[in-house]
Amino acid sequence: MVFKVGLLGLGTVGTGTAKILLDAAQRHPLLQTLEIHRVGVRSMDKPRAVDFPEDCLTTDLEAIVTDPDIDIVVEVIGGLEPARSLILEAIEDGKHVVTANKAVISRYGNEIAEAAKKAGVYVLYEAAVGGGIPVIQPLQQALGVNRIETVTGIINGTTNYILTRMQSEGGDFEPILADAQALGYAEADPTADVDGLDAADKIAILASIAFGGKIRREDVFTEGIRHVSAVDVDYAETLGFVIKLLAIAKRNPLTTDKPDTIQLRVHPTLVPLDHPLANVNDVNNAVLVEGDPIGQVMLYGPGAGEGPTASAIVSDMMAIAATLHMESPAEEKLPNPLLSNAYSDYKTVSAMEELESRFYLRLMVKDQPGVIGHLGDIFGKHNLSLESIVQIGLQENLAELVIVTHEVQEGAFQQAITVLKESGDVDSIASVLRVLG
Amino acid sequence: MVFKVGLLGLGTVGTGTAKILLDAAQRHPLLQTLEIHRVGVRSMDKPRAVDFPEDCLTTDLEAIVTDPDIDIVVEVIGGLEPARSLILEAIEDGKHVVTANKAVISRYGNEIAEAAKKAGVYVLYEAAVGGGIPVIQPLQQALGVNRIETVTGIINGTTNYILTRMQSEGGDFEPILADAQALGYAEADPTADVDGLDAADKIAILASIAFGGKIRREDVFTEGIRHVSAVDVDYAETLGFVIKLLAIAKRNPLTTDKPDTIQLRVHPTLVPLDHPLANVNDVNNAVLVEGDPIGQVMLYGPGAGEGPTASAIVSDMMAIAATLHMESPAEEKLPNPLLSNAYSDYKTVSAMEELESRFYLRLMVKDQPGVIGHLGDIFGKHNLSLESIVQIGLQENLAELVIVTHEVQEGAFQQAITVLKESGDVDSIASVLRVLG
Repeated sequence: MVFKVGLLGLGTVGTGTAKILLDAAQRHPLLQTLEIHRVGVRSMDKPRAVDFPEDCLTTDLEAIVTDPDIDIVVEVIGGLEPARSLILEAIEDGKHVVTANKAVISRYGNEIAEAAKKAGVYVLYEAAVGGGIPVIQPLQQALGVNRIETVTGIINGTTNYILTRMQSEGGDFEPILADAQALGYAEADPTADVDGLDAADKIAILASIAFGGKIRREDVFTEGIRHVSAVDVDYAETLGFVIKLLAIAKRNPLTTDKPDTIQLRVHPTLVPLDHPLANVNDVNNAVLVEGDPIGQVMLYGPGAGEGPTASAIVSDMMAIAATLHMESPAEEKLPNPLLSNAYSDYKTVSAMEELESRFYLRLMVKDQPGVIGHLGDIFGKHNLSLESIVQIGLQENLAELVIVTHEVQEGAFQQAITVLKESGDVDSIASVLRVLG
Repeated sequence: MVFKVGLLGLGTVGTGTAKILLDAAQRHPLLQTLEIHRVGVRSMDKPRAVDFPEDCLTTDLEAIVTDPDIDIVVEVIGGLEPARSLILEAIEDGKHVVTANKAVISRYGNEIAEAAKKAGVYVLYEAAVGGGIPVIQPLQQALGVNRIETVTGIINGTTNYILTRMQSEGGDFEPILADAQALGYAEADPTADVDGLDAADKIAILASIAFGGKIRREDVFTEGIRHVSAVDVDYAETLGFVIKLLAIAKRNPLTTDKPDTIQLRVHPTLVPLDHPLANVNDVNNAVLVEGDPIGQVMLYGPGAGEGPTASAIVSDMMAIAATLHMESPAEEKLPNPLLSNAYSDYKTVSAMEELESRFYLRLMVKDQPGVIGHLGDIFGKHNLSLESIVQIGLQENLAELVIVTHEVQEGAFQQAITVLKESGDVDSIASVLRVLG
């Protein structure tokens, strides 16, 4: 049995995908059932790292998604359109789809999953999160027998590279971002990465699978790393933490009054040095899954790049090939329940104000007697329990304080911050960061 | 569709398995298709953590593996016999099998896989390696599209616990082993763990899947941790290493004269502090997979225990249920190629003497001029390139030296050790350890 593949896009990931399929020796024997039939490119004249027969290439992407000979369409052009439309057309035409497109899946995943269910085809996207690291497949299969409690990820390589360098060099965000751009680790427009949008796309996808429900992309609370300063990185280290951009999806405890709701957020976070995620550095990614009864499992590796992303793409193609291989040709064929991502209900995501979190707060206050007492009063009135208040510096009549709280309610904490800002004692709030529980 | 399960054994892992199946809410919906039909126990009178109807329990294990109502047999009694025979009987009777038994699979896996292929049933054993960490399934599926180069594991929790404590406390092996036994982290007879036999079972299983061939269990070179001393742990740290019991399966480079052979070994190893495996501590396990084009991926988590092992067992049951769910009832049904582990050929494993390795050597020599020159001559004559020779101590006319080599041939190195022992300069060889390349 041979399955014909239509490849939409021959950029970095498309090239990596083709390389694996064209060099199948010593890989899983099932790869020999996958054959690249047509490749859609933007221009016919560009030099390429992989050779295809002339008539294999086309600039007509529509022709690929409607080609009756093609069984599996691989979408690696990226961006929202025409990617979304091409995926939907391919599905409607009865083709299985593999994509690396986190932006499309996090926004239109529900629409796509429903179309796929109706058409009786599979849409897989292991490459959309964590590059080559097997994340989606383990979450849905091996780890899926657990009651997943938390999925915590370092799932954006650019921000992890920047934060790792800030940590090791003691530098500030802006110059290291500029250097990362020069080195190709950050894009010319770094917004999607440094403002946490890319990580938010990915955690929305993981949450959907971990908790078996639809997710609204806009429900992900998102805070980037632009405001993280060298001072905070340095002082966090003194306290025994590293600062990482974490993406967190968490089932609210069954004991709460909202037992079937989840939390969903991306923000820079102080991570204890002995936590498994603390040692995930540079462009590497990792996803920590906590569940009952497994405890903690971490999946770690390269979060991007030609080879890793192509590995994930081809593993999805292989999963589809294995299933097609088994399927009876009969009319009443049943879908593989481990490859289906169509969920019926939306998950309810808690408002940030309701969450419990530890906080790190750095602020400049007037250097005069009684100030710490006043601050303590304000926190006390908001029912906020403090772990420590430490003066770490003094400049021109202003004392620099760092406050670390116990687990407190986010809403009450933010109210206290508002009151603090208006109090005569406080000159400025230099930074507010969350601390991993 | 409901699949009936016969559970052989109701110890720790069996109890954990039952607990998951009896409490399926908020887990993968496929679990609801799995029903415990009969449970085989050693004695009917023992108090149990899980309640079953009286007629569900039996001491007659044969009756379970031949029960016509049962679809899937789960073997968690452990040990070689009667486990092996029961597995084979269940297969012959047309039942699918899930087992956590690394001793049986590493020794009789080929026989079992062939019987399973003949009978058209699946035998899965995710729980045999790395407890709850998804290792076998990712190796065979998501990572299987890669050309796997190396699988390096910390896959024995007991030895990792002991080595972690030796590291953090500066203690010697024997007292920490005794303490680990008292605390339940090591068994009364610790041989299988501390002599590396358990890790050897597991790496034999992983190598078979990673390289797609049969493995002879006796081909695994195995050296335990009894001879690792506090002095070595301490000095390794000075040099920038931690000592870990590594299990290594490696494809020999295609450029060598034996391109389709592999290496297979378990031994204590100096691991650089910045290596991903260096931070895997206590009873945790991790498996680092290196392949083309993915690079390095690490799977990390709890390597043993009721919950984690049960998680892996149930994930295998779910994989079988998903496949049965899809399978056509027709005669000519095709097996799921991603769940089949029957390989045709044995892998050729290189002799240790042929391997290239870095070495750490601690020895006591006479404290007199010219000794280091003599040693250097001996290494030079054996074509062994040294990275450093450092004197680390002096006691009663004997100098304590530590030598670290570059990558050298194991055979030549061992010959040099023999010559050293016979030379008048050397009082004793205190320790020889390998260093991760």
